[in-house]
Amino acid sequence: MARNLVLILAFASLCIGSVLADWNILNQMRRTAVRDSLKNYCESWRMNVELNNIREFEVVPQECTDYIKKYMTSSQYKADSERAIEEVKLYLSGCCSLEGDGKDAWIFDVDDTLLSTIPYFKKHGFGGEKLNASSLEEWMKEIKAPALDHTLNLFHEIKNRGVKIFLVSSRKEYLRSYTVDNLINVGYHGWTSLELRALEDEYKKVKQYKAEVRKRLVNEGYRIWGIIGDQWSSLAGHPRPKRTFKLPNSIYYLS
Amino acid sequence: MARNLVLILAFASLCIGSVLADWNILNQMRRTAVRDSLKNYCESWRMNVELNNIREFEVVPQECTDYIKKYMTSSQYKADSERAIEEVKLYLSGCCSLEGDGKDAWIFDVDDTLLSTIPYFKKHGFGGEKLNASSLEEWMKEIKAPALDHTLNLFHEIKNRGVKIFLVSSRKEYLRSYTVDNLINVGYHGWTSLELRALEDEYKKVKQYKAEVRKRLVNEGYRIWGIIGDQWSSLAGHPRPKRTFKLPNSIYYLS
Repeated sequence: MARNLVLILAFASLCIGSVLADWNILNQMRRTAVRDSLKNYCESWRMNVELNNIREFEVVPQECTDYIKKYMTSSQYKADSERAIEEVKLYLSGCCSLEGDGKDAWIFDVDDTLLSTIPYFKKHGFGGEKLNASSLEEWMKEIKAPALDHTLNLFHEIKNRGVKIFLVSSRKEYLRSYTVDNLINVGYHGWTSLELRALEDEYKKVKQYKAEVRKRLVNEGYRIWGIIGDQWSSLAGHPRPKRTFKLPNSIYYLS
Repeated sequence: MARNLVLILAFASLCIGSVLADWNILNQMRRTAVRDSLKNYCESWRMNVELNNIREFEVVPQECTDYIKKYMTSSQYKADSERAIEEVKLYLSGCCSLEGDGKDAWIFDVDDTLLSTIPYFKKHGFGGEKLNASSLEEWMKEIKAPALDHTLNLFHEIKNRGVKIFLVSSRKEYLRSYTVDNLINVGYHGWTSLELRALEDEYKKVKQYKAEVRKRLVNEGYRIWGIIGDQWSSLAGHPRPKRTFKLPNSIYYLS
């Protein structure tokens, strides 16, 4: 009797163990499938932002903020940006018959092109929270934005070729001294002009404001050989430069 | 004496075992580092193609053909394409005050937008070989290109809204009957016009040829609500449509 009981108990525990193991494997498979499907979803969101198919987004989808954070702080983001910079250098090495008359020009965006706002977004939900302009501007006034090293290098290379550099930013005019200080602190100097949004520009879309700045430059006789920026709105509209280069940025969208 | 020898041999084999294990671990680490660094490199190449920073490439970098093959046959490629299609549908649901006068128009690319050339490139180095036009055209004449399911669905949705569909392809005119047969075989029907490159168009860049087709359509009174294509050259130039949508494709570049 007792022996039978021992046998039954042994068999039951074997069964339970086996069922639990299966359960664990199934759970693991389910978790892996959910994780892979979320990764696919968030990667396709990011990709379509960079393809300029997804526009005017106000926030990163809540379920993707971790994914976007991971990308924007990864060696892949760095490699993607560095490759864009390399392509600018390649273009410059063959493109431009510079005339040395002081009218050859290049345009840079400021935020997330020359300076990184990632330290700010690290503390503010990585695009998952609706952009709070005054909070971001307070952070800009702390003049702590680090340089994007790869762009810093390009900036000086372009300047050393005798090309005039124009910084065209959607930052507001009242941030001028903070912006200049921040740029100089991290190694940028020698630009020709820093264009910021005056009061009358604040109600224009970024795309219109930036195109108007280019129009003024062209009217002043500048040949704009290229623009590099992290927003499609920095590159769109007329007059068009000869080439445009887009850096990755899937944290926010300026239209 | 014999005992000492045994001890020495035992110690030596322990040492060798340990060194071999370390060597294996180091080798494994080196292989992982090389693999990760190649993945970073190839992903940044692909990303910069999609960002329109890398242009006019003739071949996929040799070391990246496996990576590009993996992407273009992955669930990620599918998810990225499907997301682009969803964005078209979202745009169409809110964008267009269709006038029902038969002048509302939409433009599709053919290859890698309606039909997939992946089966061809699977047999031809996945972009790692310079594009052989006659070999590709021979394959097109076999009329075996499958539909891209997500675009097939969009095609019919747009048609059912009463929007006229124009297929603007860089395929040559002599491929017309093969192209029509292939499109119909996989489920496309009811387009308004299939534009192919006539002899006089063959020496134009794709961008110019496609812009000229749009100009003709606009002159005929059509309102082009959008274009979807897999090449930046399908979307560039004037006249511009109201919106453009880019599908991923990092196998070849048409300028």
